[in-house]
Amino acid sequence: MNNKNRISKRIDNYSQWYQDIIDVADLAEHGPVKGTMIIKPYGYAIWENIKKILDNEIKKTGHKNVCFPLLIPKSFLSKEASHVEGFAKECAVVTHYRLKNDKKGNIAVDDSAKLKEELIIRPTSETIINNSFSKWIKSWRDLPVLINQWANIVRWEMRTRPFLRTSEFLWQEGHTVHISNKEAEKESQKMLKMYKTFVEKYLAMSVVDGEKSESERFAGADHTYTIEGMMQDGKALQSATSHNLGQNFAKAFNVKFIDKNEKTQYGWQTSWGMSTRIIGGLIMTHSDDKGLVLPPNIAPIKVIIIPVLKNRESDSKVLSFIKRKIKIGTSGVEIDSRINVSIGTKHYEWEKKGVPIRLEIGEKEMNSNSVLLFRRISSIGKPIKDRSSKKSIKITTLKEEIKKELKDIQSQLFENSKNYRINKTKRVDNWKDFVKEIENNNFVLAHWSGDKDVEDKIKQKTKATIRCIPFSEPKEDGLCVYSKNPSTQRVLFAKSY
Amino acid sequence: MNNKNRISKRIDNYSQWYQDIIDVADLAEHGPVKGTMIIKPYGYAIWENIKKILDNEIKKTGHKNVCFPLLIPKSFLSKEASHVEGFAKECAVVTHYRLKNDKKGNIAVDDSAKLKEELIIRPTSETIINNSFSKWIKSWRDLPVLINQWANIVRWEMRTRPFLRTSEFLWQEGHTVHISNKEAEKESQKMLKMYKTFVEKYLAMSVVDGEKSESERFAGADHTYTIEGMMQDGKALQSATSHNLGQNFAKAFNVKFIDKNEKTQYGWQTSWGMSTRIIGGLIMTHSDDKGLVLPPNIAPIKVIIIPVLKNRESDSKVLSFIKRKIKIGTSGVEIDSRINVSIGTKHYEWEKKGVPIRLEIGEKEMNSNSVLLFRRISSIGKPIKDRSSKKSIKITTLKEEIKKELKDIQSQLFENSKNYRINKTKRVDNWKDFVKEIENNNFVLAHWSGDKDVEDKIKQKTKATIRCIPFSEPKEDGLCVYSKNPSTQRVLFAKSY
Repeated sequence: MNNKNRISKRIDNYSQWYQDIIDVADLAEHGPVKGTMIIKPYGYAIWENIKKILDNEIKKTGHKNVCFPLLIPKSFLSKEASHVEGFAKECAVVTHYRLKNDKKGNIAVDDSAKLKEELIIRPTSETIINNSFSKWIKSWRDLPVLINQWANIVRWEMRTRPFLRTSEFLWQEGHTVHISNKEAEKESQKMLKMYKTFVEKYLAMSVVDGEKSESERFAGADHTYTIEGMMQDGKALQSATSHNLGQNFAKAFNVKFIDKNEKTQYGWQTSWGMSTRIIGGLIMTHSDDKGLVLPPNIAPIKVIIIPVLKNRESDSKVLSFIKRKIKIGTSGVEIDSRINVSIGTKHYEWEKKGVPIRLEIGEKEMNSNSVLLFRRISSIGKPIKDRSSKKSIKITTLKEEIKKELKDIQSQLFENSKNYRINKTKRVDNWKDFVKEIENNNFVLAHWSGDKDVEDKIKQKTKATIRCIPFSEPKEDGLCVYSKNPSTQRVLFAKSY
Repeated sequence: MNNKNRISKRIDNYSQWYQDIIDVADLAEHGPVKGTMIIKPYGYAIWENIKKILDNEIKKTGHKNVCFPLLIPKSFLSKEASHVEGFAKECAVVTHYRLKNDKKGNIAVDDSAKLKEELIIRPTSETIINNSFSKWIKSWRDLPVLINQWANIVRWEMRTRPFLRTSEFLWQEGHTVHISNKEAEKESQKMLKMYKTFVEKYLAMSVVDGEKSESERFAGADHTYTIEGMMQDGKALQSATSHNLGQNFAKAFNVKFIDKNEKTQYGWQTSWGMSTRIIGGLIMTHSDDKGLVLPPNIAPIKVIIIPVLKNRESDSKVLSFIKRKIKIGTSGVEIDSRINVSIGTKHYEWEKKGVPIRLEIGEKEMNSNSVLLFRRISSIGKPIKDRSSKKSIKITTLKEEIKKELKDIQSQLFENSKNYRINKTKRVDNWKDFVKEIENNNFVLAHWSGDKDVEDKIKQKTKATIRCIPFSEPKEDGLCVYSKNPSTQRVLFAKSY
């Protein structure tokens, strides 16, 4: 068990606060290899909930799960030119397949077991999957192919932070092939929409959906769509992406089909993914200076019941009362009946772990057929300062009240996230304001000429990048905030993770 | 879609038959790197069902899921002496973390990105997990620690076969720490029992449970327990193992705790796992010369409904009848309403895929409010020769009949597996009979002196190994079948995968 108690304040040291939340809620810790992460039971339970819901959505839309190998021949990566540019720099390379004891009795790499062709641990699986697509697909009758896999991915990152950026992470990656660009485009938009609905409904994260600019596109895609959330330091977090790959990989890997007119053409493809990174976003969207805050729809424990324990005689009565009378009517209910741990300590622990509702039940409550209910966040979504927010509830209405409170907490968190982002999103029309608003850690909607050089210069000067060209922004004539060249639409700028 | 049709007969070429079943049922195919496997949608759906049931059992017994890193520092492997002996020979070694473009424009390993310490892709996770246990555990109050992970594993195998032995495979690995040897022993036995119940109840595989001899033990364990199934060629398949690790890893990784008497002692540990190998066992236990046979309790599709399609007018009536009137009352029901595929082809396809029950519904059935039911295996568990095994069922009793049939198929398959093994298990008391029965591909229960040299010699001469010392065999004085030295118990010999 992790007994760390102190949490830095967001306002003092945001980055340390983030790490402290992970420590006090016991979500994860650093692995022995630099940049790796050990996901601990409570953190993994959150990922399991995400996985379960998302997997169900992916299957409902007709996709089937598969499992492709971890190791990819080096030569596969060079087949799609822009793809290798994007990924080659950060790959773990397997060169040998055996260890041996050296003369000193230490364990050493066996030089005689050198691979003829080096293998790459997958940084994403487009290449190895397309290699199979080229064998699976012959005719339009074979299309669409709609597959997905839940996998671990390795990208050799230099600056890492738990969940947000780790050398190894977990994700799902969808890969599809269609008969036309239109179908592929529809699929890539549909899956982005699925991600948006998921993060809003379950993770209570409000996000902006839109298209990436060319320089932020996935290596090998024609179009990359994204959802971008705002963290409590005003930075953007790319929360999921969906790519229309056009025929780029199909051409590189010879994925062809005979169409209805008996003509051979290359397949039209998409890929899309969401990773354990989203847990970093979840933490940074809702948590406060007291610890983690979890939306009920994703929380592994929605309600924690804390019996007020006194002495053996009283305790057995109270525990039996809880067992017989307390009906919550939801999954994710646990009882913390540890003895030798004070009730204060227990409250504090579950607060740090972000459990939405705590119930306290002692002899007094038992005798009045009631329970004391405490919310992790107040009814207006603000942190709770003291225990005055408690509410006594008759057990006859408990089920109903819990349902209402969980629903209220869920929507309150989403509203907070949405309002926070909206309040910190500024429309600016001149460079001076742009610089100021970015310095103030806001999202900025500004005109951009579409020129890559301008995008680069803005990044150099302010660290802000184009997070996306939002779907919600209407066409509007204007002048680029930096170059003053004509522009047809505002795009979203922000500093980001 | 895989269109391979021809299946070798078991009696002609068992090994080719196994590969053919995998091909025709479209379960998996070879990956581009030697020894790797691509698990296709239908094969992965079987694994997902296994995972779901087993994960639930693992959680019910108090274990929590975690995720440890894929990459293990080389030095970790040398800490436990016998462990490194067992695993060092077959590891994928990561030596570099970057690729670059060479002078010819080809992609090459960047020599400047050489790791200071090489990393091993996990061949099992005892070492990296114990490294964390040493930090997590301080007091007896922290125990037991009960964790599990679902992970991919790499072992560089030379001779590979889909599911049975692949360079990369999927598994779950449980790892626990206890306050005493007694507790660890109890845990290792409990988890073996869980595996046995699971394979019997869901996979309909009859297995022998027992302890491994010293030479077959897991590298680093005090005791290894196993369940061994008999395949249709009479060979044994180790289907899951559970290890009492004693204090071996605890000592190597310094996993200590203060016990109730305020004394420091090393933790007592277990580990246990089941892998995608079990799918190989599932295939080889039940399938026949017509294709895959799946027990209903694990089949992704339990019932396939095939409408008899004729013309547009009739078809829409039949499909509407199916939609409105056919209530199966179980998950895993699909309708194959493809047009332009003959009913014969459909029957043949679903037979190859091992779906337990097919329902055929045409105008005739509709008009008599009935369906035609075909079982994948006959009522006495024998292969079905023709379509005479069909059964007409009124839709009013369909739900009930399906339930009965599925239950019957499930228990029939288990009985087949059990009877087959029992009939092919021979008790022998002299070397001549031993050699003969092993040559006849039987399991042999024979006395063994407990001498490792004898075990080695028997293996050299007959290829038979000690599969286990069965729990069910009583203590019994006798003479070793090979050395004629005194023995106290019969052990199970067999050739194996």
